[in-house]
Amino acid sequence: MAVAMRVFREKGYHAASMQEIAHAVGMQKGSLYYYISSKQELLFKIFEEAIGSMARTLEEIYAGPGSPREKLRQAIAAHVHAISQRLDMLTIFLRETKVLSPTQEEIIDIHRLRYERLLQRLVSEGMKAGELRRMDSKLVTYALLGMTNWIYRWYNPSGRFTPDEIADIFAELVFNGLAEREE
Amino acid sequence: MAVAMRVFREKGYHAASMQEIAHAVGMQKGSLYYYISSKQELLFKIFEEAIGSMARTLEEIYAGPGSPREKLRQAIAAHVHAISQRLDMLTIFLRETKVLSPTQEEIIDIHRLRYERLLQRLVSEGMKAGELRRMDSKLVTYALLGMTNWIYRWYNPSGRFTPDEIADIFAELVFNGLAEREE
Repeated sequence: MAVAMRVFREKGYHAASMQEIAHAVGMQKGSLYYYISSKQELLFKIFEEAIGSMARTLEEIYAGPGSPREKLRQAIAAHVHAISQRLDMLTIFLRETKVLSPTQEEIIDIHRLRYERLLQRLVSEGMKAGELRRMDSKLVTYALLGMTNWIYRWYNPSGRFTPDEIADIFAELVFNGLAEREE
Repeated sequence: MAVAMRVFREKGYHAASMQEIAHAVGMQKGSLYYYISSKQELLFKIFEEAIGSMARTLEEIYAGPGSPREKLRQAIAAHVHAISQRLDMLTIFLRETKVLSPTQEEIIDIHRLRYERLLQRLVSEGMKAGELRRMDSKLVTYALLGMTNWIYRWYNPSGRFTPDEIADIFAELVFNGLAEREE
């Protein structure tokens, strides 16, 4: 799936062939079809694995120990890690439209909404617990998703920042803000 | 250009024809070619107008009155407005790759970098002036760009929030953070 993502990103989904993916992965085309029935199914499985694993991680964080604020910090870190490991995937996800079947699209959408709602619930619970200031939890969630998802546009694996450092700085910005406070 | 953006977003750049754009704008195809030489030139002009006008606005804010922090607040508001007015444009910009000529792509990139660097300079100057806390100004800039650009994914012009309200809440989040402070 990682190889297919790279091929899809480099050539574009439509231009990429199963032949090329098989070649890149060191398989015969026939053998590849043993595992996967079509290019569309491959793309669907890539999306589903990515969003599904992100949702499972978030659910574990949500069910785990810690205050809502600590969990939100963990969630930001997990999201930054997930995106920085799946730059190709998010590029393809945002670029390709109407390539999945309506049913496949619906399944991806369900996972995505589950993820977004759980993140919003973490934000809301932090507010109810008095750890976070009361602001619109939906807009705050979109802001969090925006700053973390946008990583796919600029992150360089051999660049100046590790995912951990990015997550720390983003969490610091989100929790404590940019303004210098008067003593 | 607004009509072309809508057609490009709905049909995809490759599938859309100059015939359809001419029809949507209420022109003969021949008359459209009087104004524009090709579909590629049309897309280039759309991107250039958008990023160019955003850069000019940011330059005016930068050169105008106010402290760096006040200017940064204005910049966030201007960016939110620009994106919420150009949802189609950003969708196409992120979706279509390798459709512009290398020269056209270079020009768009120069504008984009000019914009990003000026925003980063505003952040840095706020830090130097002691109004903003010292954090990595590049990562802060990417966070700002991410949360504001991501608007194209969720903003609904007939939804609950106006661009002004989104800008106010995002600026509040960026400057003062989400954490409840102990008295």
